[in-house]
Amino acid sequence: MKATILTIGDEILIGQIIDTNAVWMSQKLTAMGISVVERLTVSDEHGAIVDGISHCLKVSDIVLMTGGLGPTKDDITKVAIAHYLKVGMQYHEEVFDRIKEIFAPRNIPLTEAHKDQCYLPENVEILTNSMGTAPGMLWHHEGKQIVSMPGVPYEMKAIMSEELLPRLDLRLDKKVILHKTIMTAGMGESSIADRLDDIIERFDDELSIAYLPGLSQVRLRITAKGDDETLLQSKLDQSVLDVSERISDVIYGYNEISLQQALQQLCIEKGITIGTAESCTGGHLSHLITSVSGSSAYYQGSAITYSNALKRKMLGVKEETLKAHGAVSEQVVEEMVKGALEVLEVDVAVALSGVAGPSGGTVDKPVGTVCIAVGSHGVTYTRTILASKDRTKNIAYASNQALNMLRKYVLQAKIS
Amino acid sequence: MKATILTIGDEILIGQIIDTNAVWMSQKLTAMGISVVERLTVSDEHGAIVDGISHCLKVSDIVLMTGGLGPTKDDITKVAIAHYLKVGMQYHEEVFDRIKEIFAPRNIPLTEAHKDQCYLPENVEILTNSMGTAPGMLWHHEGKQIVSMPGVPYEMKAIMSEELLPRLDLRLDKKVILHKTIMTAGMGESSIADRLDDIIERFDDELSIAYLPGLSQVRLRITAKGDDETLLQSKLDQSVLDVSERISDVIYGYNEISLQQALQQLCIEKGITIGTAESCTGGHLSHLITSVSGSSAYYQGSAITYSNALKRKMLGVKEETLKAHGAVSEQVVEEMVKGALEVLEVDVAVALSGVAGPSGGTVDKPVGTVCIAVGSHGVTYTRTILASKDRTKNIAYASNQALNMLRKYVLQAKIS
Repeated sequence: MKATILTIGDEILIGQIIDTNAVWMSQKLTAMGISVVERLTVSDEHGAIVDGISHCLKVSDIVLMTGGLGPTKDDITKVAIAHYLKVGMQYHEEVFDRIKEIFAPRNIPLTEAHKDQCYLPENVEILTNSMGTAPGMLWHHEGKQIVSMPGVPYEMKAIMSEELLPRLDLRLDKKVILHKTIMTAGMGESSIADRLDDIIERFDDELSIAYLPGLSQVRLRITAKGDDETLLQSKLDQSVLDVSERISDVIYGYNEISLQQALQQLCIEKGITIGTAESCTGGHLSHLITSVSGSSAYYQGSAITYSNALKRKMLGVKEETLKAHGAVSEQVVEEMVKGALEVLEVDVAVALSGVAGPSGGTVDKPVGTVCIAVGSHGVTYTRTILASKDRTKNIAYASNQALNMLRKYVLQAKIS
Repeated sequence: MKATILTIGDEILIGQIIDTNAVWMSQKLTAMGISVVERLTVSDEHGAIVDGISHCLKVSDIVLMTGGLGPTKDDITKVAIAHYLKVGMQYHEEVFDRIKEIFAPRNIPLTEAHKDQCYLPENVEILTNSMGTAPGMLWHHEGKQIVSMPGVPYEMKAIMSEELLPRLDLRLDKKVILHKTIMTAGMGESSIADRLDDIIERFDDELSIAYLPGLSQVRLRITAKGDDETLLQSKLDQSVLDVSERISDVIYGYNEISLQQALQQLCIEKGITIGTAESCTGGHLSHLITSVSGSSAYYQGSAITYSNALKRKMLGVKEETLKAHGAVSEQVVEEMVKGALEVLEVDVAVALSGVAGPSGGTVDKPVGTVCIAVGSHGVTYTRTILASKDRTKNIAYASNQALNMLRKYVLQAKIS
């Protein structure tokens, strides 16, 4: 069964609101094994809506329409559907009863606009709206189905969950769709794709992979789609296993976990406390870590030493080191780690110093150069990266790199 | 000029990601006076993409395509465009040069996948991608235009802002549209609207106002649209003046300046240095401040004291104060300010301590309670706010409140 989603609304087309209705509908339909093949948004105009329905029914078995926040827009949609179906309008007493039922206890007088809501295009199957007055509507037309729902999110959700999906479920000849997402950090998409080339080539028709890149992270989503759930699950498991073995060095987790969540799990498991010393990232790393609920169980704090004076005073970085190598140097971040371990009293510390940009770059240390050190009272690892994007991206990229270095360091640390 | 937006991606159709690219593109096109008539999302399949292009060009003069996160998907899109245009592929040395330029300094070896990126459908006009390797592409075809851009948001935005929109601007038959945005902080949308009621009522047809609320901030965008630029400009200026006089107490700037940018201008002007002491915001405030280029001219650093132990050790908060009033108290943030002034050696410090949530709330101090103090060696101001949203929003809301308190404090400070 193929579905399309048709949303109606100028406020979506001018970018004033985000079409969260369509996102929610997509998720629900996909979870039921219904394939959403297209999503279309058209303006609040009669012709555009009629053409939209026509286009959607060309590529799918069912079109789900929403939009029209309010009576005026509902009217346009109803008239367009009647036009498309070549039918007239019919008055529905049961819709008016429902409106009375809702308004009576609130002492709201009924108006002509409420009567208008009760005229629906002929041959409709009414989908009761438990959250409001405008009903959902379903038509069967030439072997296909048209569904229209109000645009108010909680009304649409109620109609879809309580009325529409149970009906579709009964009629459905289902395909099973299974997903698993593999989370990686520290390697680019093309390099990963190259390493997985032969594995992906052996995927059969029921398996597919999608690469979803972020800043110093790539998510690999493997999808299995077919008829036999048991068989699909075993195919999916095997493919995830094959991929995981091949690139185990860059995988940090599965199913949409963030780097900071993976770090938190690991640190709590091992009883390791963490602190940060930041210069160019200016608190962003600390912010990422503390954006996870429960981070106080392992994260202690940070010294954000934006000025060189504070690098010396708070972290004990030596004047000579700053002079000899500059603030953006592996020597300085090593001393920052040492200072952080002491002042923050943590097991493992990470330090960053770099040129976030857009100004401050030199030939030797261009914008995007960031030195990162991670260490405990034993060994310290240091590296210099080149982010070379804009200021915001450089800060985010460097923070993610530091998170990944921290994670790798803690991974191999002995339990304290 | 009518435009359509065509996004490609199964991850959108299954509801895994929100198509924020399309929202941003809609806003930019609308702001230029280009009417977005439809938005269509299709799956990563050759036939669907070809049919999508065909549908979009039926209803518009230009179709803007994005999606294809990464080389694999870019390929599908490119092949579909070539198929639609009935042309072959052509190798572009300048695209390969750009890839080399990006990868050379990072010592990343170039692979076959990178060479594939350089084959583009014939007759292309290349739109340089300043943020990545995959170029934007533009074709002129039978009096209409096809644009294809990568799906990575910051790459798409760079191509659109730097390359595409300036080209469209030249070709556009324009109505004059003038905007001015008034930035406010510390008062809700309804309260502001109430205060402006009579002024807005007097706006003529060519003037309109939009309230764009954020976290503890509201942007007021006044738009003048018509034919006579000189007349429009004077109408716009007068309306901005009227509004500004009425609500001068909550305005911190104009035209999309951020609170942290306003703070930076003010501090540099007055020669005042700033430091922060953060607990519940975990570095977010420091991150906001340092996200502005040039912040090192006034911002020195921060003590992120997530644990109580560090509040004592780094900032000298007294054991008794913590015991008597709890970490989330006006007494503790006042001591944090005092400590921060000393350890960070700054003119003005701000401190925050609160319950970010979702856990940790009590009857007295529910989730969202945040104490904020700002002070210098003279006076300290303290307040307690209740954000009562989710963890992420509480952190952002409290940080914005602190920024506004800092700004007001510095505003009335004497020049040092």
